Amino acid sequence: MNFDNINVPQKLVPDNYWQLGLAAQRPKQRGFKELLEKRKLPANGWPDEHIEELVHQIASLDSNNFPHKVGLGEREARITCRLVSRRHYNFGHGIGRSGDLLEAQPKAAGSTLLAHLTNALILDLMQGLGLPSCRGCFLVPMCTGMTITLCLQSLRKQRPHAKYVLWSRIDQKSCFKAITAAGLEPMIVPCLVQHQALSTDINAFQQHIEDLGAETILCLYTTTSCFAPRNSDSIVDIAQLAKRCDLPHIVNNAYGLQISTISRQLERAQRLGRIDYFVQSSDKNFLVPVGGAIVASFNQTLLHLVGSSYAGRASGSQTLDVFMTLLSLGRSGYHSLVQKREDNFNYLKEQLIAFAQSHGEQVIESRENFISLAITLGTLCVATGQGSSITQLGSMLHMRGVSGVRVVIPGQKKTIDGHAFSDFGSHQTNLEIPYLTVAAALGITQEEIDKFFKIFHKCWTKFSQSLSENKTKQ
Amino acid sequence: MNFDNINVPQKLVPDNYWQLGLAAQRPKQRGFKELLEKRKLPANGWPDEHIEELVHQIASLDSNNFPHKVGLGEREARITCRLVSRRHYNFGHGIGRSGDLLEAQPKAAGSTLLAHLTNALILDLMQGLGLPSCRGCFLVPMCTGMTITLCLQSLRKQRPHAKYVLWSRIDQKSCFKAITAAGLEPMIVPCLVQHQALSTDINAFQQHIEDLGAETILCLYTTTSCFAPRNSDSIVDIAQLAKRCDLPHIVNNAYGLQISTISRQLERAQRLGRIDYFVQSSDKNFLVPVGGAIVASFNQTLLHLVGSSYAGRASGSQTLDVFMTLLSLGRSGYHSLVQKREDNFNYLKEQLIAFAQSHGEQVIESRENFISLAITLGTLCVATGQGSSITQLGSMLHMRGVSGVRVVIPGQKKTIDGHAFSDFGSHQTNLEIPYLTVAAALGITQEEIDKFFKIFHKCWTKFSQSLSENKTKQ
Amino acid sequence: MNFDNINVPQKLVPDNYWQLGLAAQRPKQRGFKELLEKRKLPANGWPDEHIEELVHQIASLDSNNFPHKVGLGEREARITCRLVSRRHYNFGHGIGRSGDLLEAQPKAAGSTLLAHLTNALILDLMQGLGLPSCRGCFLVPMCTGMTITLCLQSLRKQRPHAKYVLWSRIDQKSCFKAITAAGLEPMIVPCLVQHQALSTDINAFQQHIEDLGAETILCLYTTTSCFAPRNSDSIVDIAQLAKRCDLPHIVNNAYGLQISTISRQLERAQRLGRIDYFVQSSDKNFLVPVGGAIVASFNQTLLHLVGSSYAGRASGSQTLDVFMTLLSLGRSGYHSLVQKREDNFNYLKEQLIAFAQSHGEQVIESRENFISLAITLGTLCVATGQGSSITQLGSMLHMRGVSGVRVVIPGQKKTIDGHAFSDFGSHQTNLEIPYLTVAAALGITQEEIDKFFKIFHKCWTKFSQSLSENKTKQ
Amino acid sequence: MNFDNINVPQKLVPDNYWQLGLAAQRPKQRGFKELLEKRKLPANGWPDEHIEELVHQIASLDSNNFPHKVGLGEREARITCRLVSRRHYNFGHGIGRSGDLLEAQPKAAGSTLLAHLTNALILDLMQGLGLPSCRGCFLVPMCTGMTITLCLQSLRKQRPHAKYVLWSRIDQKSCFKAITAAGLEPMIVPCLVQHQALSTDINAFQQHIEDLGAETILCLYTTTSCFAPRNSDSIVDIAQLAKRCDLPHIVNNAYGLQISTISRQLERAQRLGRIDYFVQSSDKNFLVPVGGAIVASFNQTLLHLVGSSYAGRASGSQTLDVFMTLLSLGRSGYHSLVQKREDNFNYLKEQLIAFAQSHGEQVIESRENFISLAITLGTLCVATGQGSSITQLGSMLHMRGVSGVRVVIPGQKKTIDGHAFSDFGSHQTNLEIPYLTVAAALGITQEEIDKFFKIFHKCWTKFSQSLSENKTKQ
Repeated sequence: MNFDNINVPQKLVPDNYWQLGLAAQRPKQRGFKELLEKRKLPANGWPDEHIEELVHQIASLDSNNFPHKVGLGEREARITCRLVSRRHYNFGHGIGRSGDLLEAQPKAAGSTLLAHLTNALILDLMQGLGLPSCRGCFLVPMCTGMTITLCLQSLRKQRPHAKYVLWSRIDQKSCFKAITAAGLEPMIVPCLVQHQALSTDINAFQQHIEDLGAETILCLYTTTSCFAPRNSDSIVDIAQLAKRCDLPHIVNNAYGLQISTISRQLERAQRLGRIDYFVQSSDKNFLVPVGGAIVASFNQTLLHLVGSSYAGRASGSQTLDVFMTLLSLGRSGYHSLVQKREDNFNYLKEQLIAFAQSHGEQVIESRENFISLAITLGTLCVATGQGSSITQLGSMLHMRGVSGVRVVIPGQKKTIDGHAFSDFGSHQTNLEIPYLTVAAALGITQEEIDKFFKIFHKCWTKFSQSLSENKTKQ
Repeated sequence: MNFDNINVPQKLVPDNYWQLGLAAQRPKQRGFKELLEKRKLPANGWPDEHIEELVHQIASLDSNNFPHKVGLGEREARITCRLVSRRHYNFGHGIGRSGDLLEAQPKAAGSTLLAHLTNALILDLMQGLGLPSCRGCFLVPMCTGMTITLCLQSLRKQRPHAKYVLWSRIDQKSCFKAITAAGLEPMIVPCLVQHQALSTDINAFQQHIEDLGAETILCLYTTTSCFAPRNSDSIVDIAQLAKRCDLPHIVNNAYGLQISTISRQLERAQRLGRIDYFVQSSDKNFLVPVGGAIVASFNQTLLHLVGSSYAGRASGSQTLDVFMTLLSLGRSGYHSLVQKREDNFNYLKEQLIAFAQSHGEQVIESRENFISLAITLGTLCVATGQGSSITQLGSMLHMRGVSGVRVVIPGQKKTIDGHAFSDFGSHQTNLEIPYLTVAAALGITQEEIDKFFKIFHKCWTKFSQSLSENKTKQ
Repeated sequence: MNFDNINVPQKLVPDNYWQLGLAAQRPKQRGFKELLEKRKLPANGWPDEHIEELVHQIASLDSNNFPHKVGLGEREARITCRLVSRRHYNFGHGIGRSGDLLEAQPKAAGSTLLAHLTNALILDLMQGLGLPSCRGCFLVPMCTGMTITLCLQSLRKQRPHAKYVLWSRIDQKSCFKAITAAGLEPMIVPCLVQHQALSTDINAFQQHIEDLGAETILCLYTTTSCFAPRNSDSIVDIAQLAKRCDLPHIVNNAYGLQISTISRQLERAQRLGRIDYFVQSSDKNFLVPVGGAIVASFNQTLLHLVGSSYAGRASGSQTLDVFMTLLSLGRSGYHSLVQKREDNFNYLKEQLIAFAQSHGEQVIESRENFISLAITLGTLCVATGQGSSITQLGSMLHMRGVSGVRVVIPGQKKTIDGHAFSDFGSHQTNLEIPYLTVAAALGITQEEIDKFFKIFHKCWTKFSQSLSENKTKQ
Repeated sequence: MNFDNINVPQKLVPDNYWQLGLAAQRPKQRGFKELLEKRKLPANGWPDEHIEELVHQIASLDSNNFPHKVGLGEREARITCRLVSRRHYNFGHGIGRSGDLLEAQPKAAGSTLLAHLTNALILDLMQGLGLPSCRGCFLVPMCTGMTITLCLQSLRKQRPHAKYVLWSRIDQKSCFKAITAAGLEPMIVPCLVQHQALSTDINAFQQHIEDLGAETILCLYTTTSCFAPRNSDSIVDIAQLAKRCDLPHIVNNAYGLQISTISRQLERAQRLGRIDYFVQSSDKNFLVPVGGAIVASFNQTLLHLVGSSYAGRASGSQTLDVFMTLLSLGRSGYHSLVQKREDNFNYLKEQLIAFAQSHGEQVIESRENFISLAITLGTLCVATGQGSSITQLGSMLHMRGVSGVRVVIPGQKKTIDGHAFSDFGSHQTNLEIPYLTVAAALGITQEEIDKFFKIFHKCWTKFSQSLSENKTKQ
């Protein structure tokens, strides 16, 4: 509703007070107009009230919210539990249309607008984060892995006879499963190990292409964000290789959008080579609940192929989360989050190096990893004589409220969908020294880092003591 | 929190008043205990306050809600926009674990519990709806079509060399796309047409199996709920065929859970034959926003294969919606919705027959369709001389707030993923007379039906007049 | 915000879908316009979404919600806890202005509008409930008693030398305290007792006036709604007396607005006599939380005197509750509540008479009490030999979830602000037989009445048994 | 609800994850226990979720929220509009009992507890703010003025023959109306004027007492927080006078609680003299919506007299606001607000002095005013030749979003309840130079102050120019 064209009687409120109130509405209304017409992320975040007002207004454009609707179809977006309708601001129709995520819905002008506007805002943000050549993107309400599967399925429609996906090994299950889920054949390209850090083996990629024949290969598949000491893949080199061999290239950029260096590398990779799709998680990059991913491309036509590969109509809940979050942050809010993360990463690194030095360990030098760090656990390993008990250290940290750290030890075997991985978790086959990883992801605070080191120190000491006690007993 | 073990001082409240207040809490606490321990849907719906209390309590078990959390991982379920965290009751971790939708999450005891409990409640409900042999089910936060794709992908892992999916034609895009999305080859089995109604051609199925060889066939794929005049597929017969030929059988039961006859047929089909998976939409059957599907099976092992085919961790938002909705309805609330729908379907049918008679048309007899009805538009067709303008009638209804009706006319060609369909929309290749479909889905009210016929009559009259005026002009 | 003058790009949503969405907004906008311009209660209730939208819009007119406010005063309606601001829809300025509840606030056009509009809607409702001559009313965010005190204080400004208030006894503490709180002298006029029912003693009133001299009397003070067996005061007669003697007359109409007979009597009393103010509770008549009262008058000037007697600015929270409730009910919703209550009162009466007959008791005939009923407890009294233990029966009911019933027994003495009352609770000085009262107030359900009689019967039996057992022991 | 005594099956969540979740609940539960048992404000603020959980739990103890309630009374706290019940967390019974704000309610253990606990937390906070001798306080859901009226009414019950209230003039309407509302006779004691600043005239007070006779005087009535250049009254001196003359003493401490100097003075005044009641606004001191006041005393018995003077049951909404706000801030949060305010007051003062110097004006030295400042507008006055047009400057500021500044000019007459005030607004009778006041109240930000001076400077310049233009024209 609005107060325009309403002659509010003096009996309700004196005209001069009223006019002052009305005048104060104008900047807000201007903000709404600009957002819808220009489809750019506002420079500064909006107050909650404005966000909710807009969201409610948009929802009221959907047919399930029409006062006099008559629903004779099999799907009318009726919501029976009012707690549910309230938490969805009465949105019920989801996004896309049977069989295309990007199509408009005749029954749901509001949901349609919300989806397209959110995608536009994400695009605007991404272009400003170092990806000016990005031509489009959209939110898919599935995880990063499944969204990569969707991209692979789209590529397969173009290259029906190609079945191999060349994949630079990274020990994160869903990255790998994204290939098998699509019914494709993964070719695992091991990383190069140099001083314990891991990086992309370009030559191995090239060799595989020559061996298999480019026509049998669906695409190259790289990853930017990962646990140390694995580095971000050399996406510029692989992109050049892809271009040379006329092969599609998909980048798993799961949590890379929060790191400006990675965005700039993606841009450069496309300029010098070829990237067809790059996919990022919405929860990790936008701090919303798990459940969505952003597929982006430097080529709009390619994007539409992905949209039309989704067999149905999809949840709009993830879109709403990202929409509200972006409006709440504004461009400046997001950039400030990114900056803080970078500062905290540097702080974490300094502290970790200091910790390592004082405990006879070292932080593995993985220069192309901008988010995760690995510290060796060699002295503990020597002390125990057997690496496996070192996972205890991880449990100790977890019990004290520290989440997200991982202790990686040699000798873990794992088979996923018929493919065997030795030393799973370490991204390599010959792990020698166990290590522990920590990350500084978006939203981390310096307070958390400080707390972590306190707890880490305490656990380390306790763990060392228990080791020497055990020895004594023996 | 709770008041047990708290010695509330008399200064705050006199003991006798306090005891009365405490006593009133007990039935609620008993309800919580029973729900968690027995994992059965309560007989009667809960008040909103109790639902929200439980949901908040469960969410507080997730690590992102721990007061003194220290998050050092790449994904810590931080939610930056408080509108978003509020609408998700602070749930952020989603469901499942990297690469398996059914796995427990170490960081998220609450999300894990919520997902498993919701699945248990759905199972309990389904068993009571005529499916006592159902052994398991779980909510997948993707649409019905994509969930069928997931099932197909799981089956492919078992039968890697089979590539055909035998599909009884139904003109709903995402049903078909579910096959191509999985990179499989659809074999379209046309329906039998009898007096304009369509039913499953069992013999054609059998012939295809013989022609292609069972080993090349991944599965049979049937559909229960669809637009009239297509009937629900003869799932009992197909199930028997599947059993005989040792072939998997998937049933698209999109909105069939709301129809007890269909549930009973599923149960019978399994008893006499074979069904591997049957998939139903969560929005259509539980009146929640679009975005989820329930995959169910009579065999628990088969289910786990689907769970572990999802490449990542998934949204928990749809789970929360279904959880709150089920608790809000209770068993009795759901059964009453089902009963009302059935009554309204019968009412709609009666009214439509009366309307048809008074307008020189007929309601096509499709006995095995329990939700949708088709009325011929023959007299209008004769009047226009050309069917195509009849779609106008649909627009007129839509403009007046009627949603969900479809006007189907002959001559519509459509190509989906390389497969050409003639007379698309009619599930057949030789549609002669145009028709209009209406459905009575869960949640429809008699008031809506009455309003519809008022509007339908008005539009029909107006449309007929415009036709005769046009003729006169000519 | 609104979508007018916004050129939504086709890229966001196709124009025809958009137009359909916009068209659906018009009835809502018309409803807003009409409400503000005509200030009449809508015929039918509004959906929650529309109510909240309007409330938010109104709140945005207050200066504390201006985006660029600069607050340099001592009171800027800052709200620091966001749970608090959320539950008040960001309203912070309260109503009225330092020293006048009806004045507009320069800083708060929205709060001003809300207060005046709510008062207008209440007035409209009251006029339609049988009070067409009512000229004004407003909500005071204090209880009924304190609001009566405020009326008395206003009258005192007009009649500074009068100190007595002639009050028809009713044993409800705050009715009486309303007089002493104002520092005035109550003259208690006992009721006439006829067959156990109590009614106004007009002659005693007249006698008092003659004895004290009209100039010493501030006003006559009567009550319409009360516990049986006291009847509503004969307000028409007292109003005539007031007119004849040129004396102000205040009516405590605490929960009388829900009873149409009482409203019609008020109207008649004013036509034939004189009523200055009549005051009703907002919680009892509008089913909102405790905390407000409505002061009404047939004379606007008199009302303003009350408004300007409040020494400060007052809470707007009660206004908001009534505003939202009235919009939610609409005129039809309120009338239907009133009708249901009347039906339930009749039902309760029938059932109570039947219960009395079968237990050897009687329902005291108090024809002019339209809400409360009293049943004698004579047989129990005889059985016990002493009335006092009968209060046990009340406790037993209370313990079983029955609230609001009162057991009144002879012999209770009470002194309030220096005035002694014998047989307090019974509105008389010579109560002989104990009784129990029950009421059928707005919102009661037949289900509650049925449950009550089940419990009542059980308790009665148990209590009787315990009495005979005690006797046997003796 | 709680998870104690619930055997959560492993099928729902593995035991080790579950235990971790449970362990994280303990600090919260400890916090609840401590709060209820010790009734002290927590050191640090609570997260919103914990606050809401506690509030919901408390509300569930009220009979209107009992699942199987049977309401047979005239007031059953039914809430018909769910938006209303939601915003009140289902609290409906208000606080106190018919005729005593401090009494417990048999129907409402929760509301009772909430009210008493809130009062205990406020007391704890006040004792820590420099008032260790404070013995009790409670929240009254009426404005400061009406609460003072209530105190006066209580005192009158003790001193029925005293009618005068000796009041140190302060030009704030409701301060004065508090006296007349109680039907008492104000004796206005003018302030002493020294270098334009105003302070308490102790001798005049003393003279009045001698002239009227102490027995005719109900009490002395002073004010601590006010607009500059009036100073806080010399409450220590007046308290000593009160003690000497055996007269009650009420202090209007409207927004004084936020200023530690004032709290310390109150404490000292009680130690050396006598204060019966001191009353403070809840909105100004706790940043909640307008509508409540805190009455406090160094003597518990005196407090109960006030509680039992309220004629009815009162709104609990204000209590809920303060409760949630205090828990949200914690002791440290409140102290930090207080400290920031003090810093900002000093900053405002510095800036204002600088502004005054550069514009040929001065900031009036009112050392005993710790919140408000006055800057002379002498040069503008000279320029205009007539003070009255200077109010224009105020409007200009207001139009630009500045609220709360006041331009005070000579010559304003006002009559309130029959008492004439000359130069109203200036607290004196011979105002010579107009001035403008600004205040730094709780919650003000430095950003606001900076914005203010920008706007002030702009308006000043514009106003001066318009003056000279006018002159030129003349």
